[in-house]
Amino acid sequence: MNVLRNSWYCVGWSGEFDAKPVGKTILGEYLVFYRDAEGHAVAMTGRCPHRFAPLDRGIVTPQGLMCPYHGLVFNDSGACVANPFGGGQIPDRAKLRRYPVAERDGVVWVWMGAAELADESRLPRLPWLSDPSFVVIKAYLKVDVNYQMVIDNLLDLTHVPLVHANTLSSGLDEKPEIQHKFSIEGDIVHSDYFLPNSTPQDVFGNVIKGRVNFSANMTWRPGSTLSLESSIVPAGDAMGEAKYVNTLHYLAPETENSTHYFVAIARNMRIDDDEHSKRILDVVMQAFTQEDEPMMRACADLMDGADLFDLNPAILKTDVAAVQARRILGKLIKAERAGAAEVAA
Amino acid sequence: MNVLRNSWYCVGWSGEFDAKPVGKTILGEYLVFYRDAEGHAVAMTGRCPHRFAPLDRGIVTPQGLMCPYHGLVFNDSGACVANPFGGGQIPDRAKLRRYPVAERDGVVWVWMGAAELADESRLPRLPWLSDPSFVVIKAYLKVDVNYQMVIDNLLDLTHVPLVHANTLSSGLDEKPEIQHKFSIEGDIVHSDYFLPNSTPQDVFGNVIKGRVNFSANMTWRPGSTLSLESSIVPAGDAMGEAKYVNTLHYLAPETENSTHYFVAIARNMRIDDDEHSKRILDVVMQAFTQEDEPMMRACADLMDGADLFDLNPAILKTDVAAVQARRILGKLIKAERAGAAEVAA
Amino acid sequence: MNVLRNSWYCVGWSGEFDAKPVGKTILGEYLVFYRDAEGHAVAMTGRCPHRFAPLDRGIVTPQGLMCPYHGLVFNDSGACVANPFGGGQIPDRAKLRRYPVAERDGVVWVWMGAAELADESRLPRLPWLSDPSFVVIKAYLKVDVNYQMVIDNLLDLTHVPLVHANTLSSGLDEKPEIQHKFSIEGDIVHSDYFLPNSTPQDVFGNVIKGRVNFSANMTWRPGSTLSLESSIVPAGDAMGEAKYVNTLHYLAPETENSTHYFVAIARNMRIDDDEHSKRILDVVMQAFTQEDEPMMRACADLMDGADLFDLNPAILKTDVAAVQARRILGKLIKAERAGAAEVAA
Repeated sequence: MNVLRNSWYCVGWSGEFDAKPVGKTILGEYLVFYRDAEGHAVAMTGRCPHRFAPLDRGIVTPQGLMCPYHGLVFNDSGACVANPFGGGQIPDRAKLRRYPVAERDGVVWVWMGAAELADESRLPRLPWLSDPSFVVIKAYLKVDVNYQMVIDNLLDLTHVPLVHANTLSSGLDEKPEIQHKFSIEGDIVHSDYFLPNSTPQDVFGNVIKGRVNFSANMTWRPGSTLSLESSIVPAGDAMGEAKYVNTLHYLAPETENSTHYFVAIARNMRIDDDEHSKRILDVVMQAFTQEDEPMMRACADLMDGADLFDLNPAILKTDVAAVQARRILGKLIKAERAGAAEVAA
Repeated sequence: MNVLRNSWYCVGWSGEFDAKPVGKTILGEYLVFYRDAEGHAVAMTGRCPHRFAPLDRGIVTPQGLMCPYHGLVFNDSGACVANPFGGGQIPDRAKLRRYPVAERDGVVWVWMGAAELADESRLPRLPWLSDPSFVVIKAYLKVDVNYQMVIDNLLDLTHVPLVHANTLSSGLDEKPEIQHKFSIEGDIVHSDYFLPNSTPQDVFGNVIKGRVNFSANMTWRPGSTLSLESSIVPAGDAMGEAKYVNTLHYLAPETENSTHYFVAIARNMRIDDDEHSKRILDVVMQAFTQEDEPMMRACADLMDGADLFDLNPAILKTDVAAVQARRILGKLIKAERAGAAEVAA
Repeated sequence: MNVLRNSWYCVGWSGEFDAKPVGKTILGEYLVFYRDAEGHAVAMTGRCPHRFAPLDRGIVTPQGLMCPYHGLVFNDSGACVANPFGGGQIPDRAKLRRYPVAERDGVVWVWMGAAELADESRLPRLPWLSDPSFVVIKAYLKVDVNYQMVIDNLLDLTHVPLVHANTLSSGLDEKPEIQHKFSIEGDIVHSDYFLPNSTPQDVFGNVIKGRVNFSANMTWRPGSTLSLESSIVPAGDAMGEAKYVNTLHYLAPETENSTHYFVAIARNMRIDDDEHSKRILDVVMQAFTQEDEPMMRACADLMDGADLFDLNPAILKTDVAAVQARRILGKLIKAERAGAAEVAA
């Protein structure tokens, strides 16, 4: 897979993990996740090294995780500590790889590359995830396309007026006035949109009456984490207090053609309004599952497995953020594969 | 795909197309079809050259067809004439290929090869499609086998007594008396059957009582259009007025393993009898979808992707038309690929 | 496929075959089976050599099996004896391969290799299949994994306490006391288990009250036939009369990733108790279809098409029988392919 290994990948929300093991494929590898006795999230090889049974179907015992097929038991470090048969013999190959895991702000991350390079200071963190003036709703979807197509989609928000005309947008009419500003900061790509004097989107729940200035600032960090700060102020009132509906888009490539897509939506208004939470979640999930995903999948079908650039696409000015993100990612992957792991670190 | 490109392929009946775009895969390429403001059928590349979205999901605007993903607009010549974003910039690669289209006798054709070789005088045309003494019923089915297996099936009508014993045939009993005559006329193959003094098929609706002489003359034209003139006269009355139930079989290869199959059934008796039209359509569609298609698909499954000749099939005398058609097609494809496009023209 | 061809493969129970042809894929080849006029089971190429139609959909005529597509008729030797069309011409290639078939004790076998090497004295035979003091129940399942994974599963019965905790086993608690004895006899592998002083399994239907000594002796014969003699005697009564619940496991590889699995269960107690027959069949089929098959398929999914040994599995002492069987089979296949067919004979 064409992916960066030395990177933190979101694998779930904190509430999803407990002592019961769950299996997930990340970057094409099957992993098992659970919380150890201290409550720390653990990620290890998800298939038993003996007969390759899925360990998430196993039983948690006081000694460790027992394989459901022939009973080998592995402790939280991945060492095999018991074999109920054969006189208890344990061969050298009976061990699991343990992957670095980090948990911050309700997000669980795994590091798929060299363990010695895992650096928690590099964890993507969004201040509004833990800001008490925001309320956060979390969701998950699986999309059956390569993760880079999802990044492309998010870094070019000019798709919103057409693809999301029934959900996130009021249509194309006023959108061509949108102002786009692209910038790079190290390996981070910013794609910022500004639309003055426009109608507020439904997700803002009418907290501002009348026309607004709308900002939507998308940020991509390699490998595949994105966040969008989306805000409005009353039109002509540059100093007004901004109302935010921010979203995070944490992607974990599952296979070449499928992606785990974790979504959180945070807002700093109507924060106690559960009905509004439900409405926002509904509209966002409809936008992602009924509009984005079918469009991306239709494109992927027509690309028939080819790489985007190999198809010589027409490149528009509005593609610059997506193209730069692909180039940065390609450069990082190349460097990583060349053994120059320090470039990625 | 092993197909002739410089050839007209039927892509639908006239009534199927209007201003609303439809997408179809022809020879493995995704195309979009619609009628322009003058009502002329248009065929163009069906995927946007920007991000490869399916254009048939787009919106028709006064300027042209708008891509449903980011809004590029293409006119009827395939030129990109508008970009709602990025200051309206239009890159050179933002254009569609327009394919020659012809429409005659209610049939819409596309030319998949070099546009300068498209010659409407080469359109296959059947006089009875526009003859007022005939009534014509049209239908469509998709068959999940390679188009050459469908041609094979149609050029060897000795399959009828066995495969169609419950629909088009009264069974094997008298059929071995059938007389078969094969001939080639340029690149056209004729496979003619004559069965004297036989029971008329149900599709003739009892217009002749008693025994008949039955003729069934199948014609194949490269790439993949076939027609069958099927007629009866009273047995022993060679001068009698023939009653016809003719069928056309226009095939458009969709992918290596699937074929668009357009069928029309024309008859010169009971032409105002709608009940008989319905009966004929029912029996023919039952024959094609419940008998031919499952048989061809079963054979394709057991051939497991191999080329027919690579499997060293036993060749029967009754295969001569099908074998010759494969040889002619192979020769034309080879010449076309060698750049000798004038051979095919 | 990595299979032994010069070997008898079980293709069904006697009652399954009659004059009506049935089609089955064995070692990747499509075969047709039926009984001839004398009632002998016949196996021949299942696809017509003309256009590769499935002959099991054909019609049995007094002359032989008629292809359902164009009517070629093949006699029980595989010779084409009639062609209803083309003046009755029969080309040399119009013939079927006939495969040696044997039928013993209600089991039908086919020999997929060189016919001259087919030796009925090599048929696997189990005395209890025809012993009147046993009653035999027969079943069939299809498993969607390579046949060698099924052999592995059967030769390592330490999977029983974990995988079959709800059906065949009372769980892991007393099972670590199990004694395992492995032996090779020519190309035959024995994997024998003994568990003293244990609780009898449900399938023994309480014929012995209290604790028992339990023996389970599994035997594998190449290519892929296995049998398990499973018995109990009262604990401490080595001389007691053994009660048996024996099972045969006759595997026929269908494709690289699927296996025909024929099962028979024989017991020498409660032999007239139809209710107990039903209970045993239920529990065994539940164990195979709800426990073994999902586990093997999950492993196969995680192995993703790789060969077991190429994945460097951890090998346990309890794997010795399975590993030896794979080695013997590999040696026999290699010898067979080297043309040293006499090694396998």
